[in-house]
Amino acid sequence: MDPVSSRLTTAAIWTGGTDVDLRRVEIPDLADGETLVRVRLATVCGSDLHTVTGRRPGACPSILGHEAVGDVVAVGVGATVAVGQRVVWSVTVACGDCARCRQGRTAKCGAVRKVGHESFHGDWPLSGAYAEHIVLPRGTATAVVPPGLPDSVAAPAACATATVMATIEAAGDLRGRRVLVVGAGMLGLTAVAAGSDAGAEVQAVDTDPARLALAPRFGAVAADTDPVDIAIDFTGSANAIETALRRLDIGGVLVLAGSVTPGPPLAVDPERLVRRWLTITGVHNYEPRHLGRAVDFLHRTVNRYPWRDVVAEPLPLAQLGAALLRPPPGILRTAVAPRM
Amino acid sequence: MDPVSSRLTTAAIWTGGTDVDLRRVEIPDLADGETLVRVRLATVCGSDLHTVTGRRPGACPSILGHEAVGDVVAVGVGATVAVGQRVVWSVTVACGDCARCRQGRTAKCGAVRKVGHESFHGDWPLSGAYAEHIVLPRGTATAVVPPGLPDSVAAPAACATATVMATIEAAGDLRGRRVLVVGAGMLGLTAVAAGSDAGAEVQAVDTDPARLALAPRFGAVAADTDPVDIAIDFTGSANAIETALRRLDIGGVLVLAGSVTPGPPLAVDPERLVRRWLTITGVHNYEPRHLGRAVDFLHRTVNRYPWRDVVAEPLPLAQLGAALLRPPPGILRTAVAPRM
Repeated sequence: MDPVSSRLTTAAIWTGGTDVDLRRVEIPDLADGETLVRVRLATVCGSDLHTVTGRRPGACPSILGHEAVGDVVAVGVGATVAVGQRVVWSVTVACGDCARCRQGRTAKCGAVRKVGHESFHGDWPLSGAYAEHIVLPRGTATAVVPPGLPDSVAAPAACATATVMATIEAAGDLRGRRVLVVGAGMLGLTAVAAGSDAGAEVQAVDTDPARLALAPRFGAVAADTDPVDIAIDFTGSANAIETALRRLDIGGVLVLAGSVTPGPPLAVDPERLVRRWLTITGVHNYEPRHLGRAVDFLHRTVNRYPWRDVVAEPLPLAQLGAALLRPPPGILRTAVAPRM
Repeated sequence: MDPVSSRLTTAAIWTGGTDVDLRRVEIPDLADGETLVRVRLATVCGSDLHTVTGRRPGACPSILGHEAVGDVVAVGVGATVAVGQRVVWSVTVACGDCARCRQGRTAKCGAVRKVGHESFHGDWPLSGAYAEHIVLPRGTATAVVPPGLPDSVAAPAACATATVMATIEAAGDLRGRRVLVVGAGMLGLTAVAAGSDAGAEVQAVDTDPARLALAPRFGAVAADTDPVDIAIDFTGSANAIETALRRLDIGGVLVLAGSVTPGPPLAVDPERLVRRWLTITGVHNYEPRHLGRAVDFLHRTVNRYPWRDVVAEPLPLAQLGAALLRPPPGILRTAVAPRM
């Protein structure tokens, strides 16, 4: 199907619960700055699992999917990519013009829209990656995927890896530091790898032994209970966060990235924060620079860490329902390949 | 009294509660790296008031006083100052050699000692500034006080002003930022002045109307309830801190400096920290660079802000008891001049 001649594509429309409708959908004319991408492979981010199980609100009906890689097949006037490029793209789409965008906080743009999060009945129906084609509006950051980086390794760059790059930036210089990663899912193990790569001594904790067993393959050292300089949480568990906070040495930094659903408040001892010069800092989504760093990092470590092994064989789009389940032990991401 | 010929000085020994004993005390021979300073003027830091009222534990008997200015009158081999210099000196004395010192966290040196906090019966009896002379051990940071900076303005550099410089550093770039200072005591008003000087729009809150009335003279703008980019707390009040936290805009930073006594835990919503990219960071004491910045800042703003007006006329050492009371409205620091 050539999108220039045929104006139809196939999309998996999420209609509530775990229900998905495969439909033929019209591809709109591209406006200035827009890009049409043919999706090669989309990995299933845990937040989509939360959406379909009702733990997280989401526009419905909509096309989900925000962790993907694809080929540029058409561009509007002024688009920043070229037809034929293999690219990944950001979750957040920013206006570029509001106060927050001008402050460099485009992920918190006052008019932010999100890939894979918009109503199918709005002005951006083809917003998600669980479709043969996706439209990227002006203000979507993109990064070109270099040859040698497989689709299944590149796709998580758009959410998991780029978010980890933002947490790593928030953690500060990692060289020689003792780092604790809380949660050994896709983000946690990516943080283990990024920390190890940056010269830190990284340990991981998780309640799931199968996930924890992967940590050494991503560079983790054996876990202990000694003080650490940096802790990065991807679980959002108040208990786990308070435990991590207690392990911080003088000058320690706790980066929170997992607390994205309502939960109980953390009990924080302010005197301890002060006397120990501790820092707690939150990170949500990421900026365009982190997407570029994510691709570079995956490309540089493609053979060093077992990225390929933790993404399941992609399913065809018609089997998206089966991909929207928690992956089996040892696998961190299910995947769909819309044009299989 | 020439300390080289006479080996005696007069010191105010704190003996518990608000009791102070004026005694003649022997000046020891200086070891390598030590400095003997004749105290010109010492301001009374609020933490000394907490010590004598029992809110804060302290070695007893001891010579209190850690916010002072004086003249170098004798130096041991290898001291970093010269006889005749007018200097201020750090609260913390660091070994310079332990892991924390090597990481640049000398205030948290594994063997830290503190000016004005050591037992009179230990190996550093002349540790406090409520005396005609004080001995500064090797590892005490010093800064030379330039001409034109009055003693009463320079003395707070050693604790209040330098600590504020550390909080300002932790807050990040202040230019054009909206800053909330919680607590309008000596530290709070100094932070108001430092923030204004750095190009921020600073507002202050305090439950004491007399202190709050001083804020505009240090550069504060009228307080409102709008979001702020940075909040700096000097009160340690959990309520005030939680209120400040709620006012932080996206990317906001809350610096805690006042929580130096045990208190209730803060209730922190981790999802809000994450989604709003908020940071909470604690600061306690300061590093040598902050002492130098404190002196520079006071010198540069000596005529711009009413520093002179908020320090009381110094009392003689014999009246230290009267100086160890909360100062009257409009005054932020009482003071003693040991050689009056």
